[in-house]
Amino acid sequence: MYLLVMGLAGSGKTTLTGAFAKWMRENGHKVRVVNLDPGAEHLPYNPDFDIRSIVTVEKLMKEHGLGPNGAMLKASEVIVENAKEILKHEAFKPFDATVIIDTPGQLEIFMLRHEGYKFTSLLKRRAPTVGVFLVDGSMVYNIADLVTSWMLGLLVQVKLDIPTIPVFSKSDLIKDRSLVEKVVEDPLSLTEDIEKSLSGVTAELAIEMARLLAEYRQSLRPVLVSAITGEGFEELFSVVHEAFCSCGDLS
Amino acid sequence: MYLLVMGLAGSGKTTLTGAFAKWMRENGHKVRVVNLDPGAEHLPYNPDFDIRSIVTVEKLMKEHGLGPNGAMLKASEVIVENAKEILKHEAFKPFDATVIIDTPGQLEIFMLRHEGYKFTSLLKRRAPTVGVFLVDGSMVYNIADLVTSWMLGLLVQVKLDIPTIPVFSKSDLIKDRSLVEKVVEDPLSLTEDIEKSLSGVTAELAIEMARLLAEYRQSLRPVLVSAITGEGFEELFSVVHEAFCSCGDLS
Repeated sequence: MYLLVMGLAGSGKTTLTGAFAKWMRENGHKVRVVNLDPGAEHLPYNPDFDIRSIVTVEKLMKEHGLGPNGAMLKASEVIVENAKEILKHEAFKPFDATVIIDTPGQLEIFMLRHEGYKFTSLLKRRAPTVGVFLVDGSMVYNIADLVTSWMLGLLVQVKLDIPTIPVFSKSDLIKDRSLVEKVVEDPLSLTEDIEKSLSGVTAELAIEMARLLAEYRQSLRPVLVSAITGEGFEELFSVVHEAFCSCGDLS
Repeated sequence: MYLLVMGLAGSGKTTLTGAFAKWMRENGHKVRVVNLDPGAEHLPYNPDFDIRSIVTVEKLMKEHGLGPNGAMLKASEVIVENAKEILKHEAFKPFDATVIIDTPGQLEIFMLRHEGYKFTSLLKRRAPTVGVFLVDGSMVYNIADLVTSWMLGLLVQVKLDIPTIPVFSKSDLIKDRSLVEKVVEDPLSLTEDIEKSLSGVTAELAIEMARLLAEYRQSLRPVLVSAITGEGFEELFSVVHEAFCSCGDLS
């Protein structure tokens, strides 16, 4: 199977990829790791395949005189143009191991664009593909942050049409843990808080989103994890497995 | 009033800002324009205030030896640290003109983070603040793209707690105009298409999102615009005005 690790810039994709792969190995599971981020500076793991052997954002900036944005977009195009070649690398063999794929640093430059969709479509054709959508738990300041961050994971699921597990990362750094835990257990429990903190139509919108989250929670529940303490890894593994099963059924 | 122009990288924020400001001026409205993107390379308008006089991504990369991501994050922090000083600039006087604010190039680096929330909160305290959320219409390939792109605008609305108008930009380049027009008029009309093109839980999710869009459409309807042909500018102006009124009521 393929496990796509996604999330906004800074949500902890690379750190979690390294730590979760290590945990899986230690628990007897075969894992390969792919770095798909052409802008990565330092990796805390040894990738079995590294996209930087094909393209890096820095080189594109220098060679084509591009700004950072232009270079990141260009890098996305290079990945898709070379996708079939890339997928031939043995790191991508999907049946004897879980292939964890650390996606490009900025969600909007790859996974939220057609490039990410195309790449994911190629993966899906080869083997069941499951997404993990990271929300930086330490950046959740209020109920609106929480609802919208989680919803973003659902958007990615619809955009890519793969089961996507919402994961609150950096659980060791979460400021208001009770807020996150309460919402994760029962998104509708905070309707009153939403009404207090947001205005008019926006509050109604947020409540509707919370309803959607509550409903969706029955199919794939969110998990709190910490790449530092290892909290939530066992639960993440079992949710990934559940998603893989439903995903296998569908494919 | 403040009009925040937001959207993913490449959605056409800067082009629309320039063209819409020109159109408003030609139609007798007083406008000032602010560039808040520290990574902007070329502006098609003369800003009344330019954040690059305070911070640029390129300089931060050179001076602090940062990669593009790190420099963009740092630039966001610099904007918020200096926000009170910045807002003293006369370009930000909110009552004698509409102040159109062209936001940083990447949504996830500023508007989807706490920095964007803080800056918007400061604006809201001074005057009614309305958002415009651009979706690059030429990048809409299918029903899932459409639903999720529009939903992203609603997420931004909840995240920032300001009325936010969904705008499909580059209408002159839209590939399947009938799809966009149909959905914009009646999001629920495409339930069948969703069921055909997406699988299981993902299809259900997309339909729930379409329901939410249909409901929300009653309060702020989406607009198709082209910065090249000027299509939709009159409608955009009237939706902005409606949002401004409801926003004024609330504040």
